[in-house]
Amino acid sequence: MNAKVRLYVDHPLGAGQTVPLDRDQAHYLFGVMRLAVGARVALFNGRDGEWQAEVAEASKRCGVLACVEQSKPLQLPPDLWLIFAPIKKARTDFIVEKAAEMGAARILPVATDFTNSERIRQDRLQAHAVEAAEQCGGTYVPEVAELQKLSALLDHWPENRQLMFCDEAEVGQRLFLDAVQSEDPPTASGPWAILIGPEGGFSDAERKRLQAMQQAHVVSLGPRILRADTAAVAAMTLWQRALGDW
Amino acid sequence: MNAKVRLYVDHPLGAGQTVPLDRDQAHYLFGVMRLAVGARVALFNGRDGEWQAEVAEASKRCGVLACVEQSKPLQLPPDLWLIFAPIKKARTDFIVEKAAEMGAARILPVATDFTNSERIRQDRLQAHAVEAAEQCGGTYVPEVAELQKLSALLDHWPENRQLMFCDEAEVGQRLFLDAVQSEDPPTASGPWAILIGPEGGFSDAERKRLQAMQQAHVVSLGPRILRADTAAVAAMTLWQRALGDW
Repeated sequence: MNAKVRLYVDHPLGAGQTVPLDRDQAHYLFGVMRLAVGARVALFNGRDGEWQAEVAEASKRCGVLACVEQSKPLQLPPDLWLIFAPIKKARTDFIVEKAAEMGAARILPVATDFTNSERIRQDRLQAHAVEAAEQCGGTYVPEVAELQKLSALLDHWPENRQLMFCDEAEVGQRLFLDAVQSEDPPTASGPWAILIGPEGGFSDAERKRLQAMQQAHVVSLGPRILRADTAAVAAMTLWQRALGDW
Repeated sequence: MNAKVRLYVDHPLGAGQTVPLDRDQAHYLFGVMRLAVGARVALFNGRDGEWQAEVAEASKRCGVLACVEQSKPLQLPPDLWLIFAPIKKARTDFIVEKAAEMGAARILPVATDFTNSERIRQDRLQAHAVEAAEQCGGTYVPEVAELQKLSALLDHWPENRQLMFCDEAEVGQRLFLDAVQSEDPPTASGPWAILIGPEGGFSDAERKRLQAMQQAHVVSLGPRILRADTAAVAAMTLWQRALGDW
C-alpha cells in the first residue's frame, strides 16, 4: 500500500538509499502524523521521482527513512515561468501555491512601477511551493526567485522565451492561444512565461515596453476584472490546456 | 470622472433615483473612504446595471446618494452554476470569491459523502460574493444557496442543464470541451453547471450516479492533483473560454 504522507527531502533517493531526517521532519512524521518504525512515507526531491520509503529509525528529534521502491518517475513541468507582482501576503502565498499546483517550472516575483509591496520573504514563499508540491502529488518543486525589478528582468529577457502578458486594458484577444497553437512549432513548443500585472495595472512605460517585445502575446481574461491571484490560475489554465501538459 | 468606490446596494437605480444608505454603508463611505457631499460613487444592484451617483447627504450613521447617469448596462453572466463541497473556511470563502469574479450565475455548496464541513454561514458567503462583485467591476451578484445534500440536488436535476464534473480519477479527457463545442447548439449553449469534488474525492456511489447521468461530462484538470479552490478556478476558466463569455 502506498503511503498517505508525502514529504519533500533535499537528499538523493534511490534503491537502498537511506534518508536522514532533520528535527522538523522528525517532529512532523513522528509527533504530528504519529508514524512508527515500519510505516510508509512517500518521498520526492525534485530530481529522482517519487519513492516509497519505510521508517527505519524514529525518535523525537531525528530519524531515518529507507527507500523501498520508486512509485513515480520524475515528471518535469513544461518550461513555464510565472511572473507576478507581490500583493497582500495571503494572496502572494496563494499565487505561489497555485503556481506550484498548476505546474509552473519557475516562479519570479517582480517589482513593477505600481507595486506596493517592496519586500518578500523568499524562504517562506519557497516553503509554500514545497508544501503545494507535497499536496498535489507532484515530483518537482518550482524555484521561487528573489524579488527583482520587472525592468531588470526584461533587460535580460531570453530571446527564445515567449511571454504571455495579461493586460486588463486589452479585450478581444480570446483567440490568441488558438493562433499560437497553429503557428510554427518554435513558438508553441519553446519556453514560455506568463506575466500577471499588479493590482494597480502596468504603468504606461511598462505597457509600451511589453507591447514592443517581439516575444509578447497579449491575452484577455474575460469581461470582469480579475484579482491577480485569480488571473494567475486562469492564465496558467489557458496556457496548460493550449500548450502545456494538460 | 468615474468613481473609484463601487458599492452594491439592494435598491432600485435609475435617472433621478435617490438611494438611502444604511449605517454600515455610511460608515464605509464617509468614515473609511472619507467621501464628502458631491463625491462620486459607482452603484450596482444586480438588476439595473452600474450607475454613477453623487453623495447628496452624509452623516456618521446615514446618508443619501443621488443617481447621476448609467455607466454600464446590466451584464448577466452565462447561466453557469458552480457546485462545490465546503472545505476549510478560508478556502471556502475563496471559492465563493472566485466564482463571483469568474462569472458564475449561482453558487451551490453541497454536502457529499466525504464532506467534512457540515455547516456553512450562508450570509457570510453571500457577503463575499457581493464584495467580489464590487471589486471585479461586475454588475451582477451570484446567489449563494444554502447548503444541501449533493444527492438531493441530483434528485431534482434539471433535464436540460449540462454538468461538467471534475474527477481526479479521470485522465485523458482533455478534448471534452472541444467535443462539446462542435456538438449541436443545445448542449453547448444551454444552461450548465460545474461540480468540484470534495478534498477526499467522490464516493463510489456518487461517482457511479454522476457517470450515469446523461447530462454529465467528465473533464480532467491535468496530471497534478489540484486543491478544490484551484480546481474551481481552472474549471471555470476552461468553461468560460469554450462556452462562456470570455
